[in-house]
Amino acid sequence: VSGHRNDPTLDPTLRSWVPVPEGSDFPIQNLPFGVFRCPGLRPRVGVAIGDHVLDLEAVMASGLFADLEVALPAGVFGSDSLNGLLALGRPAWRSVRRRVSELLRAGSSEILERTGPEGRVLARQAEVELLLPARIGDYVDFYSSIEHATNMGRLFRPDTEPLLPNWRRMPVGYHGRAGSIAVTGTPVVRPRGQWKEGGGGEPSWAPTRMLDVELEVGFITGPGSRQGGRISIDRAEQHIFGLVLVNDWSARDIQAFEYQPLGPFLGKSFATSISPWVVTLDALEPYRLPGPPQDPPAMGYLSTPEDWAFDIELAIELQSGAMANAGLSPMPISRANFRGLYWSIAQQLAHASSNGAVVRPGDLFASGTISGPAPGSFGSLIELTWRGANPISLPDGAMRTFLEDGDTVVLRGRCTGPGRAPIGFGECRGTVVPAPID
Amino acid sequence: VSGHRNDPTLDPTLRSWVPVPEGSDFPIQNLPFGVFRCPGLRPRVGVAIGDHVLDLEAVMASGLFADLEVALPAGVFGSDSLNGLLALGRPAWRSVRRRVSELLRAGSSEILERTGPEGRVLARQAEVELLLPARIGDYVDFYSSIEHATNMGRLFRPDTEPLLPNWRRMPVGYHGRAGSIAVTGTPVVRPRGQWKEGGGGEPSWAPTRMLDVELEVGFITGPGSRQGGRISIDRAEQHIFGLVLVNDWSARDIQAFEYQPLGPFLGKSFATSISPWVVTLDALEPYRLPGPPQDPPAMGYLSTPEDWAFDIELAIELQSGAMANAGLSPMPISRANFRGLYWSIAQQLAHASSNGAVVRPGDLFASGTISGPAPGSFGSLIELTWRGANPISLPDGAMRTFLEDGDTVVLRGRCTGPGRAPIGFGECRGTVVPAPID
Repeated sequence: VSGHRNDPTLDPTLRSWVPVPEGSDFPIQNLPFGVFRCPGLRPRVGVAIGDHVLDLEAVMASGLFADLEVALPAGVFGSDSLNGLLALGRPAWRSVRRRVSELLRAGSSEILERTGPEGRVLARQAEVELLLPARIGDYVDFYSSIEHATNMGRLFRPDTEPLLPNWRRMPVGYHGRAGSIAVTGTPVVRPRGQWKEGGGGEPSWAPTRMLDVELEVGFITGPGSRQGGRISIDRAEQHIFGLVLVNDWSARDIQAFEYQPLGPFLGKSFATSISPWVVTLDALEPYRLPGPPQDPPAMGYLSTPEDWAFDIELAIELQSGAMANAGLSPMPISRANFRGLYWSIAQQLAHASSNGAVVRPGDLFASGTISGPAPGSFGSLIELTWRGANPISLPDGAMRTFLEDGDTVVLRGRCTGPGRAPIGFGECRGTVVPAPID
Repeated sequence: VSGHRNDPTLDPTLRSWVPVPEGSDFPIQNLPFGVFRCPGLRPRVGVAIGDHVLDLEAVMASGLFADLEVALPAGVFGSDSLNGLLALGRPAWRSVRRRVSELLRAGSSEILERTGPEGRVLARQAEVELLLPARIGDYVDFYSSIEHATNMGRLFRPDTEPLLPNWRRMPVGYHGRAGSIAVTGTPVVRPRGQWKEGGGGEPSWAPTRMLDVELEVGFITGPGSRQGGRISIDRAEQHIFGLVLVNDWSARDIQAFEYQPLGPFLGKSFATSISPWVVTLDALEPYRLPGPPQDPPAMGYLSTPEDWAFDIELAIELQSGAMANAGLSPMPISRANFRGLYWSIAQQLAHASSNGAVVRPGDLFASGTISGPAPGSFGSLIELTWRGANPISLPDGAMRTFLEDGDTVVLRGRCTGPGRAPIGFGECRGTVVPAPID
């Protein structure tokens, strides 16, 4: 929790010459990376600052990245993904971050001097399209919250020990569908699938009646590894670029019928939403802390003396179509914290690559549903309502067990603490639209 | 089994002016697509003919594709993947195939007239590097052989019904790791992982002792679908470009400890090998036939009157390091046929997209291990040796239950039948190399 004290980009007293609204997720201490498109132009890489986005391609074209310690290849920011930057590795990431921080700092006039009117390098976020930040090669979803895994064991296998024997030995996970990952704001079409009414009888093929959310945080990888190599836990920091919010939409009825013995497939693969800005490990440095104790102790390949938990306050908000029509804002239905995650992101990466699997720049590894110990801190509707036993009351008078068409779900993440600049993740939002007529 | 009779590219009497050795997998009736690189040059798309590869980029540059019914975008063959071609769809694929067949037909001199010496458009396969044919976005692995699923149920859950209730209702599957897919010839590094000696006690983290193969056939997709859309089974033919051999290398001890409840992960994700040439549905048309009966009948979204089984003879060959040193060829250890697959590839694609999941050009969907009904036709070592009860004797005097370092496995696929030209898939080969010292 100390390394950040020497990093000038993290000084909580820093201010930017770009106006940053009070309470913004994106003060100058954050500087998350994303991909955006101005109307009619090609996509490019940018950094969020307040309500604006700084166009890194334009900054580079102006020669303002000429003196970095790490030379940047041409075109690295004139791209529809962060993958080129991700492949360069941590020294380059840090170099760019420090330079962007200098350029945006109150008092600096380099950008305005070099590029003329600020309109040439800064766009309002509201006026650009935010795109998927990375070309995601593989998507792994873990199951690393002990509270969530315990809840799911109790709900799905009530007669047995909720945690299976492997759970405390390794970060259990599986591969999801990378092609179905979409950026915040993309509508989510209610999936059809095979499920059994009440879990019994003959299956039917129909739109899911148990559409759920999963509150997750994922990390995006940097350089990666070759087949047969591995990323040791001590090298994880060189390979993790930053974090995003993830909503792993789930159809519980489809999942329940299909998942044995090969795991979740169509109950998950229809849609996964992520937030558009990748919040870097550098920006999160002030919010690192030790994770929960592990019993039994992690095996050698999963052990590290470093702090790999992150103090990130998370929330799920829900807004029905009727609430939206009545002008009612999304209502918080759960609050959790990422710091409670049993298996850290470094352990997840070390485990996933421990068998020599290939990791590429832009891979996404998500935490699995993050649930806290108390009922109001669970990360999915099936847990929050305890499979329907405790429905949620909405301000429009309606009740919810699972999602209805027209419902909007917003995930939020924010870091705050004394002596540190508060930063956030922006929104991960999606609205459910009806299944198409077959 | 009749549509092919009118397709001139499938006439079994056709011959090419390019010499095709007797018994070649690649006569003029096959024309599979792949990606190759001549030493020092950029990768490009080619078609296999006998022992040669026809450079489609050079053919296009010579203007010989100018009069196709479907116009081809510039650069579609000057690429390191088939993805550009895959996105164009079946009318374009068929158009290119017909033209290539004309150009290679005995008596045609268009290529030689237009391009001069044949060296400019034809290279010997032995002198080029064959690359992964597609940039594979997502990799799904099914479990569609009833014989294999039954064997695995008996081996892993001996006290229960071998097929779970969902198995006869849907093609059960899961997502594998796309980044770990490599083309034939790529060495396979023995993975480490957590496993328990004899299945009990404390787990250790060590190189697998149960390294296995899985004999599979996969299909590569064309245009694909958007989130919320789906590919109906009647449209499957428009979205399946062709087939490859797949070896889904598996570490049974790692898999056994990790796989519940989320399915296989590190026991599979370390390596998957595929053959380099994609054999098109058009070339396979003479070998289409009805699949096995399904009980209960498939639901509507999985029903089609079309024939979706393929008569492809498959083999697994094994060669130990000692055999290689003694000049002994790989020895066949299993022979199966793809026609017995319970769930067809059209059913697999319709199911995988039935929930609105995104399918992209170049996705790979593999069949799962193909086992026949008899012991000599099983598609994995764990089945062939019945978990070690019946080890395999090699000609060098050694025995095998699972793979040793230095072992080479070759998968082969071939179609033959009266009145039809025999065609094949080429090799899917891999040699096991030791786990690195930790």
